Amino acid sequence: MDHATDLPPGMVREASERIRPLARRTPAFSSTSVNHVAGLDAHFKCENLQRGGAFKIRGASNLILSLPREDLRRGLVAFSSGNHAQAVAIVAKHVGSKATIVMPIDAPRNKVEATRNHGAEIVTYDRFRESREPIAQQILKDTGATLVPPFDHALVMAGQGTAALELLESVPQLDALVVPVGGGGLLAGCATIAKALHPDIRIFGAEPERANDTYLSFQAGSRVEIPLPDTIADGLRSQQPGKLTFPIMQRLVEQILLVTEDEIRETVKFLLMRMKLLVEASGAVAAAAVIHRKLPQGIRSAGVILSGGNVDFEELAKY
Amino acid sequence: MDHATDLPPGMVREASERIRPLARRTPAFSSTSVNHVAGLDAHFKCENLQRGGAFKIRGASNLILSLPREDLRRGLVAFSSGNHAQAVAIVAKHVGSKATIVMPIDAPRNKVEATRNHGAEIVTYDRFRESREPIAQQILKDTGATLVPPFDHALVMAGQGTAALELLESVPQLDALVVPVGGGGLLAGCATIAKALHPDIRIFGAEPERANDTYLSFQAGSRVEIPLPDTIADGLRSQQPGKLTFPIMQRLVEQILLVTEDEIRETVKFLLMRMKLLVEASGAVAAAAVIHRKLPQGIRSAGVILSGGNVDFEELAKY
Repeated sequence: MDHATDLPPGMVREASERIRPLARRTPAFSSTSVNHVAGLDAHFKCENLQRGGAFKIRGASNLILSLPREDLRRGLVAFSSGNHAQAVAIVAKHVGSKATIVMPIDAPRNKVEATRNHGAEIVTYDRFRESREPIAQQILKDTGATLVPPFDHALVMAGQGTAALELLESVPQLDALVVPVGGGGLLAGCATIAKALHPDIRIFGAEPERANDTYLSFQAGSRVEIPLPDTIADGLRSQQPGKLTFPIMQRLVEQILLVTEDEIRETVKFLLMRMKLLVEASGAVAAAAVIHRKLPQGIRSAGVILSGGNVDFEELAKY
Repeated sequence: MDHATDLPPGMVREASERIRPLARRTPAFSSTSVNHVAGLDAHFKCENLQRGGAFKIRGASNLILSLPREDLRRGLVAFSSGNHAQAVAIVAKHVGSKATIVMPIDAPRNKVEATRNHGAEIVTYDRFRESREPIAQQILKDTGATLVPPFDHALVMAGQGTAALELLESVPQLDALVVPVGGGGLLAGCATIAKALHPDIRIFGAEPERANDTYLSFQAGSRVEIPLPDTIADGLRSQQPGKLTFPIMQRLVEQILLVTEDEIRETVKFLLMRMKLLVEASGAVAAAAVIHRKLPQGIRSAGVILSGGNVDFEELAKY
């Protein structure tokens, strides 16, 4: 490896084997009418159809299935507003471990319910008044449990990268890959394997304008922290990119594309009506960038990760 | 063949080859949480992801691609409230023929728009005051065009049957197959090939309680005509089963299951939330029967056709 900060692509390949008992090989779809609107051939990797309704189970299972038996016995802890929480709960149940999830009290109701239904214990906190780290640290100290970080861990990034590995196995000829960015685990993992397989592929991240921490960090050349963002893309409300994810993104990603709240909302409706697929706001951000033609000219085909589909019906009806 | 009224299963296999340039091989999905609710393993054949948003392109393309060149030159006519219209429009465009679609003036707006967008000419009529047959007959007489019937034609039934052929190719071990019934083309075609491949498979139709023409015909032992039904399942508002479809269904189908309007609506929301799939009311009727446990005891696995996904966002938001 050239860089100390690289993620070895082999780890993504290993993850692909390891996670198989838990993560689905999701389909990739394209649609002539969507291509017409986007002005290019778009291939959508449907992580909304993934177990737990989002890509998160890839990273969570890759990490958890790598843990020694005695660690699993002491339990697992995660802090997450939603999809990562569900993923950890599902994997914990599968391996017979106890999951404790630290969640903001204003997390989407459907995601809290789903996490509880998978047998996890929920500990809530007020994200405007409390910091989640001391809460999680106390649980870790009390129980000896293992923390499952949502993105900033090599095994988590490698697991998330399997989404791109599968997409490129089914659609090998792509000019570009477009991936939503929260903490950057999905993008770092996907970029790593995509560039290893096809050095010429162009990699793009997509963020809500209102949660542009990675965009600003790209401009600054180092990790920028922003105030708690307010966006309908609740899964992308990270305040700064990860220590591990950022240098990987910086090296492999050409550009972070920004989309407005209206563009995200329109895209959720568009994917639902045209492709019959329910994608949550966070999951639709990369599609929003492609459909609203934010990619540079000259790109004729793009892989687009639809990263999740967990949205309340009532929330959706408001769109 | 034992019966003069049989559809030869070989026609379904031939259709499967013929329609390939136009009809997608749609995926089949299952979900652990849905299985839990249904009390059996349900495998959903996703015709909502089919080209044109419904299974109808299978039958329409099988018939139209069998026509001689000179017939195509004189044009195609169909009467349909929606999905069949779109399918004929798409196939007509593909073969370079002109499609004229006779539609009720109260047909769902999204379906009318989609049909027009595929380049078809729309002729409307008032279904409470006018009969569509004389209107279609006049067009046929004036133009020499060919009528593409929505269900009561061997090539149409054979085309629709390819949905079950594909499903049974990917999931060969099924105790039962459950299919929505309007005019009966989809059910007759699917039952024919399913019984040919697996003589022990049990076949069920599903109808809205409010559009129970086939249910009543099964009870009567002959085709019963009902008044124009009022149901949210707008694609299943047939007033009686077909002359050709009925004897096939009568011989191969064990039972017609009935579902209420509320059960249909709930199922549309359920499939959307749990499986992230948009299915229209008509397309969700077989799933509604399975999820609401209307199948006889002892069935452990069922193939379920999700027959279409064309629904307005505004309509959906009302659910």
